Amino acid sequence: MLINFEQIPETVIPHMRGGEGQVVSHMHVDGDNKIMKGFLAPGCTIGLHTHDTSSEVICIISGTGKVLYDGEYEPLSAGSVHYCPKGHAHSLINDSEEDLTFFAVVPEHGV
Amino acid sequence: MLINFEQIPETVIPHMRGGEGQVVSHMHVDGDNKIMKGFLAPGCTIGLHTHDTSSEVICIISGTGKVLYDGEYEPLSAGSVHYCPKGHAHSLINDSEEDLTFFAVVPEHGV
Repeated sequence: MLINFEQIPETVIPHMRGGEGQVVSHMHVDGDNKIMKGFLAPGCTIGLHTHDTSSEVICIISGTGKVLYDGEYEPLSAGSVHYCPKGHAHSLINDSEEDLTFFAVVPEHGV
Repeated sequence: MLINFEQIPETVIPHMRGGEGQVVSHMHVDGDNKIMKGFLAPGCTIGLHTHDTSSEVICIISGTGKVLYDGEYEPLSAGSVHYCPKGHAHSLINDSEEDLTFFAVVPEHGV
């Protein structure tokens, strides 16, 4: 199936995972995957969280920022691909002056 | 972790899933996910296959083509996101005159 994010109503999540500000996302969800296009305005973050039964792949579409992954910062810019395997922890941080736009897949793998 | 596809040696897969020609890919693999950047030259295809325990998300980076998904053709161009949920079948077809470049995630969900 084709996923057209523009046809999926936006969801605004304040303080996602204890982060700053809000995340705006267009998300396709089923029992196996969350597939989303998301936006973080300057200063907004997704808080640090561990993927206990899932993982996450994030592709940066536009903007710059960083992740905190297992205690180390990784820089992000358009084209960057960040992977948080199951059992690891990360956050997503827009420390820039422009919107950070990303595509993400959160697969559920089970315990 | 950051995945830099340019630092991953390319894998050439002839007749992938019974398809035409070959797929060139740079792939990060663990027990939970295959994360890849792939290229299909004009006329090349990934053959029809069913995702019995996994699923697949494909984002088109450049070029045009189509998928055959559960018996229906879906057109693809840069920015298209195709999703094949677990239990469904698809193929990927480059019926254009230029390379089709894509990013894909194949998560394993178990039975």
